Amino acid sequence: MKRFSFEVISETLREVLTKSGFDDERAELCGRLFTEASRDGVYSHGLNRFPRFIDAIKTGLVDVDAKPELIQSLGALECWDGHSGAGNLNAYDSMTRAIALAQAHGIGCVALRNTNHWMRGGSYGWQAADQGMIGICWTNTLPNLPPWGGTKPTLGNNPLVIAVPRDEGHVVLDMAMSQFSFGALETYRKRDQQLPVVGGFDGKGQLTSDPGEIEASGRPLPIGYWKGSGLSLMLDMVVALLSGGNAVFQIPPEVPKETKLSQVFIALSPLKDDREHTLNGILAFLRTASSDESGVRYPGERTLEIRRQSIDQGIPVDEDIWNQIIAL
Amino acid sequence: MKRFSFEVISETLREVLTKSGFDDERAELCGRLFTEASRDGVYSHGLNRFPRFIDAIKTGLVDVDAKPELIQSLGALECWDGHSGAGNLNAYDSMTRAIALAQAHGIGCVALRNTNHWMRGGSYGWQAADQGMIGICWTNTLPNLPPWGGTKPTLGNNPLVIAVPRDEGHVVLDMAMSQFSFGALETYRKRDQQLPVVGGFDGKGQLTSDPGEIEASGRPLPIGYWKGSGLSLMLDMVVALLSGGNAVFQIPPEVPKETKLSQVFIALSPLKDDREHTLNGILAFLRTASSDESGVRYPGERTLEIRRQSIDQGIPVDEDIWNQIIAL
Repeated sequence: MKRFSFEVISETLREVLTKSGFDDERAELCGRLFTEASRDGVYSHGLNRFPRFIDAIKTGLVDVDAKPELIQSLGALECWDGHSGAGNLNAYDSMTRAIALAQAHGIGCVALRNTNHWMRGGSYGWQAADQGMIGICWTNTLPNLPPWGGTKPTLGNNPLVIAVPRDEGHVVLDMAMSQFSFGALETYRKRDQQLPVVGGFDGKGQLTSDPGEIEASGRPLPIGYWKGSGLSLMLDMVVALLSGGNAVFQIPPEVPKETKLSQVFIALSPLKDDREHTLNGILAFLRTASSDESGVRYPGERTLEIRRQSIDQGIPVDEDIWNQIIAL
Repeated sequence: MKRFSFEVISETLREVLTKSGFDDERAELCGRLFTEASRDGVYSHGLNRFPRFIDAIKTGLVDVDAKPELIQSLGALECWDGHSGAGNLNAYDSMTRAIALAQAHGIGCVALRNTNHWMRGGSYGWQAADQGMIGICWTNTLPNLPPWGGTKPTLGNNPLVIAVPRDEGHVVLDMAMSQFSFGALETYRKRDQQLPVVGGFDGKGQLTSDPGEIEASGRPLPIGYWKGSGLSLMLDMVVALLSGGNAVFQIPPEVPKETKLSQVFIALSPLKDDREHTLNGILAFLRTASSDESGVRYPGERTLEIRRQSIDQGIPVDEDIWNQIIAL
């Protein structure tokens, strides 16, 4: 593990992206989004994902020249086609447009079809909150989550992001509909640890906290059992109906592909009066649930801590990944 | 348990509501919403709740003359004050307005402050879907759910509703952020049954499936542990920032009160082309997760079955409750 400054990393990524065919502005933004993900501790969708992203350009999955195209406007609700462009750029553009719509109408919604993996979903929540907007967005994905009552993956884990702007630090939830990602299961297994709570079924159909058993059965749990199962389904239906794009069942199930996804981006203008007072009151009350000061955390709190550390000490980078990137 | 026709019940409720001071039109709508909840199997927020609703009028919690007042409009996003009117009427009016906004702008959002319990939240999802709209709404409530990492209830279970219109029967999710409601815990305990999955903590801070232990500790679980805890917090923040009304921590914690709530109602216009094809494809694929035809259900499926039964055979009514109602 090495640490590099934000500038060194983002500049390095920018150069690779320029070589891969992006114009200067898009290369800068794309590199920045990857760097910010690692800066905020989301390494899996930051630098660790970058080599695979470049590979997706080489294999033609991601089109560096594509930009979202407006298909239909109903005023505050717009439908766009991502034309298989870079997922994080398409998503960033879509939230930018949703914010502009919200500035004009109070609320704005962009539904996006035919896009690629947006990398770190939270990015677009932080983006909205940085503009003083409430941001809500979600994506569908390939079938990777069995519904409650079933054994085969016919749902996506469909991550949902909700962000609220706050002067002292935004509050940003970024969560998938599975209790644990396959990445998390792998991490626990490699450390020889049990999950903190049950995370799926073993081969005999029993609930288990053993990460390896869940990887083997391919049956991770939706959050809240039947509840997250239902929520995942609804998110897929809404995103498909608004975008006119693929639903989970129409997305190729081969894991490395994960393309032609559908996403929704909503921005809402909060009432200005006493916003900080309300949010700080909510958080202060939240803390009182535990006698331990740090017993209860809010979504995004840990992100801000890691971000401060990354800025102070540099962003941690896996050496193997770094060597791969500079060789690109 | 008796069964009565929809007409007999709704007419009986209408008469009581007229006596309680509602004008004819509001009495009819309010009675219909209660009757529909029971018709669809949500007895707890249908007829079983009606005597308590009338009591709330008598104690001044619900103002029969109040109607929502527009406080601010930003175009497609409006903020209304419910002035402590009947919760179900305020909610119905708000979704009606959100639908009108969505007809004009593609998406519409009404944030409502100072309202009362909306009874069955799903009602406003079905309402939107009946108008061919996607409906999303949620409410906050009094502090009744400890956050992950805490022992005291500083979150609300903040029910969330997502509805999608479908010719063969809408798909409607209506779920609280707690894994089990206190009503459900009581039902399991009285039947001397364990919960199907862990539902909270016992007095020693261990996860348990024993409903009585959870009632005693006052520590039900949020869905997905830390995930539902975060989602509940975000729903509260968004609803408070949009409505300018109370957050959970500002709502009086005394259980019978549960007043001055904040709610959000969003309607979205789906793309018309191949809507049914997409939704039916999603549902058909969902079923393939289980070799058992009825292994996997979708949100709202059971509602439609119960509705058909209620229409065929009459709506089941608890005799005690019915006697209370006709004595009102």
